[in-house]
Amino acid sequence: MNVLCVIGWSKSGKTALMEGLIKGFKGRGLRVAALKHHGHPGDVFPEGKDTTRFLKAGADLAVLFGQGGLELSRPLLDPDPQGLLPYLWGYDLVLVEGLKGSNYPKVEVYNGSPEGLLYQKVKGVLALVSDQVEVQGIPTFKTHEVDALVDYLMEKLPLKRQRLTLVADGREVALNAFVERMLYGLVKAMVAPLKGCEDVKEVVLRWERDL
Amino acid sequence: MNVLCVIGWSKSGKTALMEGLIKGFKGRGLRVAALKHHGHPGDVFPEGKDTTRFLKAGADLAVLFGQGGLELSRPLLDPDPQGLLPYLWGYDLVLVEGLKGSNYPKVEVYNGSPEGLLYQKVKGVLALVSDQVEVQGIPTFKTHEVDALVDYLMEKLPLKRQRLTLVADGREVALNAFVERMLYGLVKAMVAPLKGCEDVKEVVLRWERDL
Repeated sequence: MNVLCVIGWSKSGKTALMEGLIKGFKGRGLRVAALKHHGHPGDVFPEGKDTTRFLKAGADLAVLFGQGGLELSRPLLDPDPQGLLPYLWGYDLVLVEGLKGSNYPKVEVYNGSPEGLLYQKVKGVLALVSDQVEVQGIPTFKTHEVDALVDYLMEKLPLKRQRLTLVADGREVALNAFVERMLYGLVKAMVAPLKGCEDVKEVVLRWERDL
Repeated sequence: MNVLCVIGWSKSGKTALMEGLIKGFKGRGLRVAALKHHGHPGDVFPEGKDTTRFLKAGADLAVLFGQGGLELSRPLLDPDPQGLLPYLWGYDLVLVEGLKGSNYPKVEVYNGSPEGLLYQKVKGVLALVSDQVEVQGIPTFKTHEVDALVDYLMEKLPLKRQRLTLVADGREVALNAFVERMLYGLVKAMVAPLKGCEDVKEVVLRWERDL
């Protein structure tokens, strides 16, 4: 999973930068998932909404779906994007607003907040976006230079497309190149003889142990 | 996927019956997903919300996540729960509010609407819930008899737990018992030698064809 976080203090323009990055990466042909980390405690689910009523009644998952859209809600114990993996595969890039404490690569947006810059205090900041400051030692872009920033990030990020992903009990299993290649071939061989699967582009398979 | 729909005219009490069914099936140990079909056109996504901004900027998926909850939004082309399968597996029962035109088994809730009863006009109605009418030829329950209704449905619904599900390019592939058993064994054999997977309970595997 290729993750890039947009970090910055409150009201620094993170959401606007997210929008710019989404447009930029989409314009370069990537499939983009955009996540917002809701840092402070409190319910993500609005009171009185039918899906909230379903969750309060005990549903493990609540979904609103219809013409044009799908909205899925569920309780979440582990706020790490890795735990969301089965929802996130098939995307070339996962942009996250927030998660400054994570190990993922990051872009910092800074608009002069008295709390100061973050890039020397947190891990993995690749670039700074600011109209207020210019800093030595880290590539800095103005807010109107999102296009140049996206070009820079296209170079810097691995953006590897994963051909085979294995999740065991909710956690991704790290596979070395040999095992990944072998499993890739096995799945291909398993699925190819099935009717309608001759030219399949994507296969998702779920297995649950017999009790 | 085991689906049960709750159908009825507007304001007939569908959402309240959904809540009662969720509680009833959860109380009997089932893992329950609850879906609401948004029948009339119009945006599922509230204006101005950050995840809506992400989608408008072109994101293929937008997610809000944090302490306690996950909310995932995306455009949806095909409003059939089958297309939502990778979001819905791992649940023993998928309850849907709506979809009266579908082939799934159904419960009708009726509170005397002049539009009349639906159970003779649509397929697969297993029971009627009404405080206003009593009808011959279909099991009828009062709204306070949800518990008896759940017992009845536990008998009537197959509620088979699927041990192996295969989705190819977004569609479930029907497998006969022999092929399902064979693939079940193959996945088990593929995964068992991997580190940390000796006693795994659930495996989800995604494969994408090399270009």
